[in-house]
Amino acid sequence: MDNILIKHTKALIDGEMIPADIAIKDGIILSMDGAPEGFVPDTVIDGEGKLCMPGLVNAHTHAYMSLFRSYADDVAFDNWLFGRILPKEDTLTPEDAYWGTMLSCIEMIKTGTTAFCDMHLFAGIPAKAAHDAGMRAVITRGLTGSDGGERRIAEALDEWNEWKHDPLISGMLAPHAIYTCDEPFLHRVMEVADETGLGINIHLSESPKEIDDCYAAHGCSPVEYLAKMGMFRHKTLAAHCVHLSETDIMLLAEHGVSVAHNPKSNLKLANGIAPVKQMLDAGVNVCIGTDGAGSNNALNMFSEMNFACLLPKGINKEGDVVSAKEVIRMATVGGAKALGLQNVGELKAGMQADLAILDLGQVAFRPLHDIAGALCYAANGSEVETVIIGGEIVMQNGALTKIDEEEVYYHAERITKDW
Amino acid sequence: MDNILIKHTKALIDGEMIPADIAIKDGIILSMDGAPEGFVPDTVIDGEGKLCMPGLVNAHTHAYMSLFRSYADDVAFDNWLFGRILPKEDTLTPEDAYWGTMLSCIEMIKTGTTAFCDMHLFAGIPAKAAHDAGMRAVITRGLTGSDGGERRIAEALDEWNEWKHDPLISGMLAPHAIYTCDEPFLHRVMEVADETGLGINIHLSESPKEIDDCYAAHGCSPVEYLAKMGMFRHKTLAAHCVHLSETDIMLLAEHGVSVAHNPKSNLKLANGIAPVKQMLDAGVNVCIGTDGAGSNNALNMFSEMNFACLLPKGINKEGDVVSAKEVIRMATVGGAKALGLQNVGELKAGMQADLAILDLGQVAFRPLHDIAGALCYAANGSEVETVIIGGEIVMQNGALTKIDEEEVYYHAERITKDW
Repeated sequence: MDNILIKHTKALIDGEMIPADIAIKDGIILSMDGAPEGFVPDTVIDGEGKLCMPGLVNAHTHAYMSLFRSYADDVAFDNWLFGRILPKEDTLTPEDAYWGTMLSCIEMIKTGTTAFCDMHLFAGIPAKAAHDAGMRAVITRGLTGSDGGERRIAEALDEWNEWKHDPLISGMLAPHAIYTCDEPFLHRVMEVADETGLGINIHLSESPKEIDDCYAAHGCSPVEYLAKMGMFRHKTLAAHCVHLSETDIMLLAEHGVSVAHNPKSNLKLANGIAPVKQMLDAGVNVCIGTDGAGSNNALNMFSEMNFACLLPKGINKEGDVVSAKEVIRMATVGGAKALGLQNVGELKAGMQADLAILDLGQVAFRPLHDIAGALCYAANGSEVETVIIGGEIVMQNGALTKIDEEEVYYHAERITKDW
Repeated sequence: MDNILIKHTKALIDGEMIPADIAIKDGIILSMDGAPEGFVPDTVIDGEGKLCMPGLVNAHTHAYMSLFRSYADDVAFDNWLFGRILPKEDTLTPEDAYWGTMLSCIEMIKTGTTAFCDMHLFAGIPAKAAHDAGMRAVITRGLTGSDGGERRIAEALDEWNEWKHDPLISGMLAPHAIYTCDEPFLHRVMEVADETGLGINIHLSESPKEIDDCYAAHGCSPVEYLAKMGMFRHKTLAAHCVHLSETDIMLLAEHGVSVAHNPKSNLKLANGIAPVKQMLDAGVNVCIGTDGAGSNNALNMFSEMNFACLLPKGINKEGDVVSAKEVIRMATVGGAKALGLQNVGELKAGMQADLAILDLGQVAFRPLHDIAGALCYAANGSEVETVIIGGEIVMQNGALTKIDEEEVYYHAERITKDW
């Protein structure tokens, strides 16, 4: 692995732009203040006129679903799921899922995402794709309780055992949701979590129907239901959390549950808008995800940050809530914490060298009064030029170094051509 | 002006992708089916793997305000306006406004916008900037009633008389809002509209405070107030319309008032979310604007279209409302109609040659199940390669042909460096 020196650059630190010379050795940031004595760079990057920012962490996606990009738009949820997504998902092979995941990796890298949490259906595939793309990934095989629950748990453990020594790959257990896993199965997953020490990744409080059904079946909200069950004694990442009571928010905060906010997917599937301001006020660790491309259709965290900044202002009728700086924190350190990634999400000595280099010459930064605002409100992701993950350059001046883009597009179009 | 032939391309027609060979002569689309006999192109563009779409129409902006990009983020409205925007706006010279407007033209052209409606403060400046940039513009000098109302009207008429013969420039009268123009002044503006035949461009029903104050002063909503006054006998473009009663929506539809929806600005300034579904259902001509960069901070219509598709689904809890096709219509023909632009907004023979050429090889279009969905939900504007306005190529493969980008950036940064 190359020693890298990024010279005469600006680094994004706590939402501010600070002059820096970044030395990277063995995948780790050795110094933010230039090459220490004895450091001999193999690669020198001219950082003049560039911004180095921590790589973005996409805290919730289903990466194989990029195959569904623009396949199921503008339809009601039941038609989306039963009419469009499930019939085609049912035809996908593991190899198809690999190409879909690679397609997501292309889009994520190009828009500055360096790590993602993937809830998937194809054991071993996302880990292989992330490995081939050079991305940091948390692999979480979706688990549903009825008919084959134990098989899925075994698959999840097999892939975890196969990949757990890869420095870029980690795992969580992913009971899909309270409406696809019954209580005994959720207890079984917690048992596995106890045995393995793995955290939990679950869809939670996404739709009004989920809330209504939970009250009807259990007399309480989905958050209360899991809290009573003891789920939150495990490190938990809950995706969506659109519909929350004040008690729910208090429970999430008390138990240190992280919430992956997916603003665009929640709008597209007509679920609503999550109470992000209220969660942040209560001290919940909120991070940001794109969800799958079938309900988005992009995996561009810059667009997601834009929504995350704007929606709370509009719905709370307060212009000074959920600032750009807070949202950048959510999309970097917040995500890293939620995913259990050690030393990820900030640019400082000792951290993993996961970063995106942006061209400050682009119009989004002209003029540049405030870097956090420019990133969250004006940039669209196309400003990203170079991406480094764990010290490896995975994109250089717009060219992916580890992925053959055209090969991936060829397969994605081959797989979906008769849809 | 060159004769242009775009060969072997795809054209976006009624939201669908149709094979085309586009011949352009004297600024007009001569044919969508190849070069007619005797047509000799000066310029041939290879359209293989590209999409030609109608240029986007930004129906509401204040283009000089790009100087304020990321200058006033995450603050409450009063602080935004009185603490940040007005004190600096007060220091701007007409020359400053020219560079700010040119800066907006750069961003708009790069993201496929070919026409914009500009409410401004600097007579003659936006017309000159649009002319220099090669953009189609509707210039509307903002009019306020107290102290200097007649002077402003005179300025508006002077610039209109100076520029009305320019094929790319047209004008409207722009009484700023009901809270900055009293009733006698609004009648005076209507008198001028009668004399000149110019349409009206006005901010309307933007904030909760505007509604409350109007009820307190006039016992009715802002829309009812203008309707009673007879304003809507003129061709009217009303920006924002966030807070509307059912009666308001009915009045807008009945009177053929066009509404410029500015979803991102409305969120950022904490005004709320406009009832777009309800307006469309009632038959209102809704179009899309970015508003000024001070309350956005981008002038990227792709991002605005994304919000316009997603917000109505989330707030109405219906996934099948306000489709991508409808939003593309709003951002093209809807905008052209609202701005009174003749033969603009569609690609067909006889129309003005205002179009953007996008690279279908970009990841947003891979795979490509539905072009309208891909444009509204996955594209971010960076897919635009070439832009033609009135038959003139203003951007070719990412390079602006009429604007010296670095000169504009230099001035924008010079003007704002001590802010």
